Amino acid sequence: MSPAKIKVGILGATGAVGQRFVQLLQGHPWFEITALCASERSAGKRYADACSWNLRGGMPEALRDVILQDCEPGFDAQLVFSALPSSNAGEIEVAFAQAGYGVCSNSSNHRYDADVPLLIPEVNPEHLGLLDLQKRKRGWEGFIATNPNCSTTHLVSALHPLHQRFGISKVFVVTMQAISGAGYPGVSSMDILDNVVPYIGGEEEKMEHKEPHKLLGTFDGQEVRYADFVVSAHCNRVPVRNGHLEAVSVEFKQKPSQEEILQAWQSYQPLAQQLKLPSAPQPAIVVNPAQDRPQPRLDRLEGSVPGMATVVGRLRPDPLFHYKFMVLGHNTIRGAAGGSLLNAELIVAQGYLGAEAAAWADVLQAA
Amino acid sequence: MSPAKIKVGILGATGAVGQRFVQLLQGHPWFEITALCASERSAGKRYADACSWNLRGGMPEALRDVILQDCEPGFDAQLVFSALPSSNAGEIEVAFAQAGYGVCSNSSNHRYDADVPLLIPEVNPEHLGLLDLQKRKRGWEGFIATNPNCSTTHLVSALHPLHQRFGISKVFVVTMQAISGAGYPGVSSMDILDNVVPYIGGEEEKMEHKEPHKLLGTFDGQEVRYADFVVSAHCNRVPVRNGHLEAVSVEFKQKPSQEEILQAWQSYQPLAQQLKLPSAPQPAIVVNPAQDRPQPRLDRLEGSVPGMATVVGRLRPDPLFHYKFMVLGHNTIRGAAGGSLLNAELIVAQGYLGAEAAAWADVLQAA
Amino acid sequence: MSPAKIKVGILGATGAVGQRFVQLLQGHPWFEITALCASERSAGKRYADACSWNLRGGMPEALRDVILQDCEPGFDAQLVFSALPSSNAGEIEVAFAQAGYGVCSNSSNHRYDADVPLLIPEVNPEHLGLLDLQKRKRGWEGFIATNPNCSTTHLVSALHPLHQRFGISKVFVVTMQAISGAGYPGVSSMDILDNVVPYIGGEEEKMEHKEPHKLLGTFDGQEVRYADFVVSAHCNRVPVRNGHLEAVSVEFKQKPSQEEILQAWQSYQPLAQQLKLPSAPQPAIVVNPAQDRPQPRLDRLEGSVPGMATVVGRLRPDPLFHYKFMVLGHNTIRGAAGGSLLNAELIVAQGYLGAEAAAWADVLQAA
Amino acid sequence: MSPAKIKVGILGATGAVGQRFVQLLQGHPWFEITALCASERSAGKRYADACSWNLRGGMPEALRDVILQDCEPGFDAQLVFSALPSSNAGEIEVAFAQAGYGVCSNSSNHRYDADVPLLIPEVNPEHLGLLDLQKRKRGWEGFIATNPNCSTTHLVSALHPLHQRFGISKVFVVTMQAISGAGYPGVSSMDILDNVVPYIGGEEEKMEHKEPHKLLGTFDGQEVRYADFVVSAHCNRVPVRNGHLEAVSVEFKQKPSQEEILQAWQSYQPLAQQLKLPSAPQPAIVVNPAQDRPQPRLDRLEGSVPGMATVVGRLRPDPLFHYKFMVLGHNTIRGAAGGSLLNAELIVAQGYLGAEAAAWADVLQAA
Repeated sequence: MSPAKIKVGILGATGAVGQRFVQLLQGHPWFEITALCASERSAGKRYADACSWNLRGGMPEALRDVILQDCEPGFDAQLVFSALPSSNAGEIEVAFAQAGYGVCSNSSNHRYDADVPLLIPEVNPEHLGLLDLQKRKRGWEGFIATNPNCSTTHLVSALHPLHQRFGISKVFVVTMQAISGAGYPGVSSMDILDNVVPYIGGEEEKMEHKEPHKLLGTFDGQEVRYADFVVSAHCNRVPVRNGHLEAVSVEFKQKPSQEEILQAWQSYQPLAQQLKLPSAPQPAIVVNPAQDRPQPRLDRLEGSVPGMATVVGRLRPDPLFHYKFMVLGHNTIRGAAGGSLLNAELIVAQGYLGAEAAAWADVLQAA
Repeated sequence: MSPAKIKVGILGATGAVGQRFVQLLQGHPWFEITALCASERSAGKRYADACSWNLRGGMPEALRDVILQDCEPGFDAQLVFSALPSSNAGEIEVAFAQAGYGVCSNSSNHRYDADVPLLIPEVNPEHLGLLDLQKRKRGWEGFIATNPNCSTTHLVSALHPLHQRFGISKVFVVTMQAISGAGYPGVSSMDILDNVVPYIGGEEEKMEHKEPHKLLGTFDGQEVRYADFVVSAHCNRVPVRNGHLEAVSVEFKQKPSQEEILQAWQSYQPLAQQLKLPSAPQPAIVVNPAQDRPQPRLDRLEGSVPGMATVVGRLRPDPLFHYKFMVLGHNTIRGAAGGSLLNAELIVAQGYLGAEAAAWADVLQAA
Repeated sequence: MSPAKIKVGILGATGAVGQRFVQLLQGHPWFEITALCASERSAGKRYADACSWNLRGGMPEALRDVILQDCEPGFDAQLVFSALPSSNAGEIEVAFAQAGYGVCSNSSNHRYDADVPLLIPEVNPEHLGLLDLQKRKRGWEGFIATNPNCSTTHLVSALHPLHQRFGISKVFVVTMQAISGAGYPGVSSMDILDNVVPYIGGEEEKMEHKEPHKLLGTFDGQEVRYADFVVSAHCNRVPVRNGHLEAVSVEFKQKPSQEEILQAWQSYQPLAQQLKLPSAPQPAIVVNPAQDRPQPRLDRLEGSVPGMATVVGRLRPDPLFHYKFMVLGHNTIRGAAGGSLLNAELIVAQGYLGAEAAAWADVLQAA
Repeated sequence: MSPAKIKVGILGATGAVGQRFVQLLQGHPWFEITALCASERSAGKRYADACSWNLRGGMPEALRDVILQDCEPGFDAQLVFSALPSSNAGEIEVAFAQAGYGVCSNSSNHRYDADVPLLIPEVNPEHLGLLDLQKRKRGWEGFIATNPNCSTTHLVSALHPLHQRFGISKVFVVTMQAISGAGYPGVSSMDILDNVVPYIGGEEEKMEHKEPHKLLGTFDGQEVRYADFVVSAHCNRVPVRNGHLEAVSVEFKQKPSQEEILQAWQSYQPLAQQLKLPSAPQPAIVVNPAQDRPQPRLDRLEGSVPGMATVVGRLRPDPLFHYKFMVLGHNTIRGAAGGSLLNAELIVAQGYLGAEAAAWADVLQAA
């Protein structure tokens, strides 16, 4: 017999990422939505009235009449997913964690806090150990866990199996990022039709100094020691709906052969995949062998769980680094809501929501 | 009193680059078109009937009734501009050079011949010295001069004043290239709408191994010694009509300050500009100070001669190289037909079409 | 126990419509592919080598090594789907019908033959009676059935329930058609980026004089008497990947109320839906009540079978006709390969492939 | 000797239409800008600091340091161009007219006031007679004159010579409107990339009931009697930067031949062209004979004054009306700022700004 479903709320349910949370949670085997929260302007309205749904397939029928709540603790849920804007995510997430909720956040506010895990389940599941420290230090019943920025997520996902084996020393990346990364209404059509914008505020800083180093850092039981490679990033916005494409060049501590890199990707079978978490794609990294792939339109929904895999291709020697290749991933699925969701699944499986919730992971293993 | 106009023909006049030659030669102070040449399929037809004109402003009225000729020597002209496809440009250009015509070619066939100049007037005007060697060695009355590939042109234009002063040792470039670079019909809309294609056949090889090194090489009176820096290139096609945007990182033999780089660009005043050649933009390099520029749509027609300048921006330190910045330039104007045209103007000014033609340059200086 | 699967071949399997046939037949409950046929240029090659697959999800693994055959009868199948170009579809389809195959064709060659059904299962299933006449008259063992042009399909699908009840006298339609309607490579990106092309060769003629009138005509047992309303069409190509959007105005023989029109659409339950054919969407027509819908991107995959429904919206009075509204439908699914597939399902269910095949329809009814 | 330049201000100078006013007034032979006005938020700032310029060519150097003023009378100018949003245009324009300024407005607030001319100089110059009534009735020293909506402007421009000769009874129009019509930031890229939106708030009402009828109405010295034809409009937004394309069908009181329609367009030589007003294109209507034109990208800048002409094409019989054809025009030039500017030129030439200003018109006639 299955355990009871785990009740979850969504903070910022009307926005672009909030809609993705709603969409991805439809039919989820473990979680059921018990609360949709929104800003004061929308709270009290029907979800169908307050939310301009713009994903294919339309708003789930069962949620149309749900009344939006304020973003305040008090409703019946163990976990909340946060799609709040950074202008108010910081305080609200703390309030929920204090009140005993687990918070899986897509917002950047707490990503770089020393006691908050910045998590990709395939990459650094051991960083979840920070949750115990966080709760103890802050005196919280609940906790906050975060997922990285959309462009960092797929870069680091592709690098992780290489870093494990060969040690990365230098990473050069030029991104071509989709418009959906800026939310809705986000990028004006006047700015991007027949154009590329070679600037995304704050993005290069995140990639160069903050996120990859924490994600690939080592947790020693007390803190995360940042990995020590150097990253250079140019970030660009292109007229593509979904899917961030990244031109990546890498230098290693020990130079592997091209075949060893392919092998590292193809044999990659990290914990999330071993645990068969519901949103973990099998495999985590898809290698496309064609000379002109990956491409956003063709490959962004690649993978056994659409939009959750990272796709790599065009591996070849680089005259200035060791190798270069292309990385592609869906920015609003794995790069945002789907990343938080997979984090939540790992958190459940690792017992951070209690033994009853963790029983779900046993169901998977038994299957 | 002005000298007589110099008669010119266009080889491959019906294609995308051929149309640009026609457009740019309208009202040119030095040149007048006396022949439009096309493939066997089109020869004998009216230009208006054989050519599907797709530039704004429409086909020049005066040329609509011109009867297209075969691509064979015999007509009255001193110079021909070649917009031929590489499948047949090689032999036809040789035939014209043998027959005494000067050939200014946008095709790649002869670009890497040791005795053929690969020319950007601002960058390596002294390479024109190869023309004497070429004529002597091959026993030709005429000659062939070429311009580089569209993505190389603007990269090297931006690098030249820096290389002159500080010596370049490493160049990393990721291009985001416009669809017009593939000609017409070129890129299928099915391949590029809502997409980026991370591959352009042959493009990375040209940038990494061939063109920048020859362009920035030194001519010792006998041959061009290739410059010895290392280039790494990722080339991508984006859904932009015109204007190649390039993310560039550079390392120098002597690291300059950021201010010195800006100063090198802003004080750049090479020979073509000193000669006030009709198609030479003043200045050759435009520095856009905004944090999100250059952008293809806003800046591709930048410059005193629209589409002939190279635009740079976003200069900043690079954690892995010395500096990084963006380069933008129009690919079918300066990067193709306009590049050939400026080459022709330099060739005239330097006397390679004879003293009578060279008198045009004196007119400019007197003005 | 299920009947044996019905063996089918695909003519023109490497093109855009051929790929859709392959995709839609994956996992089809009734049909299995036994032959992939292509032009001489591709025959003899592996499917993976000859076909540049450009649909999401990639080429089905099981078909990658299939060797392409010539488009000639001889292989083991009862039915072939034709995605051939009109340049050679005419003769090849006749050869297959003569050889005893049922041919379900998306090509236009035989659409207007008096004894060939032009079929939309929801609209004119009784026209299948032409198959008996066709076989008798032509002395064929097999037969040819066709589906209409992509822009006609959704227009007529939306009009049919209205025509049944109120009688249509005038139809005014302006189409905004997707690029995929022109196949691959089809529309050059140079022609359509930042543009609309107000002309599609032959399209207005098909809509004004040929297809709607035959589709909504009455079959009297001997021939199809064309319906007698008047159609005016303006056809335009827009920069949209998939989904033809049409602005439609209609005048009726008896003017219904707005409510009656909505009711006619919402209660529409034609034979294909009653039979529960595997590719028949439930409902056939989706009414979107929002004031700014349907939209291609959001609604083209609408319906219980993605891409098979017709979506209508913005119903309102028209100052010059009775009513106006928008129609949207997927052009390469229901408008091409999916239309042929649903035709084949109806043909099977109606017994035209024999009793054994027809047993599949009984399975559905029993379910 | 030339008269003194006429001083003008721009209300709403930082927005999309305001920038066009600034651009079009550069180098204008009659007008010079003496004031740039903006909202409270921007007033007091340098124009370069408050305005995010997004037209090609960049902000005019001479205006970068101009300090923005409040939208209040008091500065030295005879005329103001209003690019204000409808939320506050109504009152501000009245304040300026009361204070003695001539107001040429692109806003919709006063377009339908009985004593305010809605003006296209080629179409209804005699409606300027309303200005005398307006000043008298309202007791103003100044006045307000307006130009129509962008989609109406080109429709009515194309219809006017036909209405004059043959009398229009019915007009059916389906628009495909460019994104720039919605201003900046205007249409979200998320809404329009790979999409068409079949709804533009208020647009169909303006075209069906208000603007064409007033524009083609007759001024009897006291009031404008609206023309009595019937219009039906479907309005759509398409992913095109500039240029509204319209599919038009027309029925006349007296059916002309196709040749007579062409002749009416080609011989059209209304007052604005006879007066040789600086912004009046010669000819006013361009007939493109190609079967697939006009197209927004190729033809939106058509005309002797770029973006000021109306382009027509594809004239052919219509099965439901008399004829159908396509109309194209630039929406932010002639359809907005350029329309207001030409209105101002006519107002000057007709003496409404006094005899000294009117002397400019004599200069033209003398040329």
